[in-house]
Amino acid sequence: MSMSNETTHPGEYQLDEQERAVVQAIREKGNLSRTGLSKELSYSRSSLTAIVNKLLQVGLLSEVGEGQSGGGRRPTLLDINPDYGYVAGIDIGATSVDIALADFNGRIIEEYASHADVRTEPELFLADLSMMLLEMLDACKISPNSLLSIGVGVPGPVQFSTGMLVAPPLMPAWENFPIKTAFRGTFPAAQVFVDNDVNIMAIGESIAGGGSALDNFLFVKVGTGIGCGIYLNGQIYRGSDGCAGDIGHICIDYNGPICHCGNPGCLEIMAAGPAIAELGRQAALAGKSQFLSERLEAQQGQLTTKDVADAAAAGDAAANEIIKQSGTMLGGALASLVNAFNPQAIFIGGGVTNIGLTYLATIRQATLRRATALSTRKLGIQYSQLADKVGITGAIWLALENIFA
Amino acid sequence: MSMSNETTHPGEYQLDEQERAVVQAIREKGNLSRTGLSKELSYSRSSLTAIVNKLLQVGLLSEVGEGQSGGGRRPTLLDINPDYGYVAGIDIGATSVDIALADFNGRIIEEYASHADVRTEPELFLADLSMMLLEMLDACKISPNSLLSIGVGVPGPVQFSTGMLVAPPLMPAWENFPIKTAFRGTFPAAQVFVDNDVNIMAIGESIAGGGSALDNFLFVKVGTGIGCGIYLNGQIYRGSDGCAGDIGHICIDYNGPICHCGNPGCLEIMAAGPAIAELGRQAALAGKSQFLSERLEAQQGQLTTKDVADAAAAGDAAANEIIKQSGTMLGGALASLVNAFNPQAIFIGGGVTNIGLTYLATIRQATLRRATALSTRKLGIQYSQLADKVGITGAIWLALENIFA
Repeated sequence: MSMSNETTHPGEYQLDEQERAVVQAIREKGNLSRTGLSKELSYSRSSLTAIVNKLLQVGLLSEVGEGQSGGGRRPTLLDINPDYGYVAGIDIGATSVDIALADFNGRIIEEYASHADVRTEPELFLADLSMMLLEMLDACKISPNSLLSIGVGVPGPVQFSTGMLVAPPLMPAWENFPIKTAFRGTFPAAQVFVDNDVNIMAIGESIAGGGSALDNFLFVKVGTGIGCGIYLNGQIYRGSDGCAGDIGHICIDYNGPICHCGNPGCLEIMAAGPAIAELGRQAALAGKSQFLSERLEAQQGQLTTKDVADAAAAGDAAANEIIKQSGTMLGGALASLVNAFNPQAIFIGGGVTNIGLTYLATIRQATLRRATALSTRKLGIQYSQLADKVGITGAIWLALENIFA
Repeated sequence: MSMSNETTHPGEYQLDEQERAVVQAIREKGNLSRTGLSKELSYSRSSLTAIVNKLLQVGLLSEVGEGQSGGGRRPTLLDINPDYGYVAGIDIGATSVDIALADFNGRIIEEYASHADVRTEPELFLADLSMMLLEMLDACKISPNSLLSIGVGVPGPVQFSTGMLVAPPLMPAWENFPIKTAFRGTFPAAQVFVDNDVNIMAIGESIAGGGSALDNFLFVKVGTGIGCGIYLNGQIYRGSDGCAGDIGHICIDYNGPICHCGNPGCLEIMAAGPAIAELGRQAALAGKSQFLSERLEAQQGQLTTKDVADAAAAGDAAANEIIKQSGTMLGGALASLVNAFNPQAIFIGGGVTNIGLTYLATIRQATLRRATALSTRKLGIQYSQLADKVGITGAIWLALENIFA
């Protein structure tokens, strides 16, 4: 009886461990022949053939042409069948949401970006998201039943196993809200995976950015807040409560200003985007920057990090000083993380990276000055190679990588 | 021809992946029957029988009696054969060395402790160690050829793959010295594994201490310096250059005193043992502590952390203040690590823990005050359960766990 369901939703076919390994090998290495797979996985040729036949039968793999001959007949190459099913990546920010629809190889086929406010009641917010996704599927002539997995990034601490937010400062109404269930109502064939926004950025960088050849790296997001995705031994490290990488509340000055968390001198309150904008405002009010004073007046007393960036680009000394000061504070904190994690690289993303290259140079200097010589001798520090696409890329791969796990 | 070697040194038998899994399962679970192993590892009964027969034949396993019947005949239980071979654990400190000899189940059969100075030329230092080990083997009537593995902890950064120290501040002459080769000259049957002293402490705590049921914890050593062993996802995390956990040079005060590394305000220069002793000396000289003034005079101007501990135990207010101040500084730095790693527990070891329970209480308070609520709701902070045995325990298990890897 339940067999009818299985034919309706191909994605519900349950892979065993060896089948998963075959799919994984092809995802990582690209097209492979049966001989190549057999060598790669140390499976006997006969069991490999049986596994591949099964995966061809359920439509997960497809034969995509012939490879180079090793002497005899040219081997047939196997690849993931991109049309086996579809996945969605959703990157929820504090005031925006990005949605992408991708095929089973992770290639984006439709994208949509919208303003949104996470302070909205989660049931409404997620119903809107589901509507947008339905419209995107419709525009692509894809049945909602072919959507097999949804990866969601949210700006708050997530318990990965349940997909629920725990004590999220930006979106308190979402605490313990069942995000997975909300999506499954509209997309019954889809599995849903929810992770912290910075973790999905680290996943994105590991798949298609500067981290693709690395085992250990940190992805640091600097925006309204500061957070860190930790990629160790080839996978995201989430910690015992799912909140590893919450570096915004590392203390950088025990006599510093009080953070919204109640403690003095947190990295976030002193060096994130709002702090940069506030330092700009103070410089404008103190008459230290004509550029920023004019902006402040033109914008009814409001300044953003973009204004500080514009001022710096125009050669404004006060703005450049603010950027250097912020980069130095961030670099000092990163030095502690470098000593603790000894990563191969740090990638920096988030809105504040648009502030320019002086910022990156200062972060590098401060990190290298404070971290130990051994931990920095091969360390790379750079902006995310995927920039503002890193979150949505990570959300798609969160969906793809976990679907058969 | 080379077969004769194999019979001389049983430890050189190379296990394949499935044989390793069987040995590992018995190490972790204790005695198991063939049926239990077959279930535990999801191997077919026939392949499991073949593997076990091979391991019985080479002497690695032994049959140790009968288990509870599941209905029919009582099953024969299998265990590691403790006499298959022997391992040594060596814990090298700045001024001391601990050596232990253990059977193949990790049970210590002989121990030896000695003063030693790591500033000695490494060739001489290691020749002395080999001599001590030979004498211990002789006293136990064990042939040096039965010593199959040696685990060594050293007080400096180690590249684990090569077993060489890299830029070790306490023992510069050891840089790139081939420790493994030095031992193999005397113990040709032994594999040698070298790791940082704090990493072996974390291993010890994970095997026989408070970490035995945990996946993620930090082991913090406070002595002459401050370091951290990082145990993540069930294994030691060493970082990309082997120097992860070098937390002694995390900055806790950008205006603090200059550390031997050249930077101001490192945790180590402000809160390790020598800093506590120095604060005691200053209190004595300033006339703030009669107890410490008398000690200082009696000891020709020298004070140690033990003197500060004695003063605190006698109710000396200045000494208690110093202990609280040091614990607060350490706890502040640990809060940053808790936010970053989100561990289940922190264990604190090293000489300074003898300073008493006020120290631990202050560390706890400072950590909980500064770390995020989510990351601390299940966090335990306690002294090492194995105390001064944790290093040698870890060195033995470093030897045992890697022998077949």
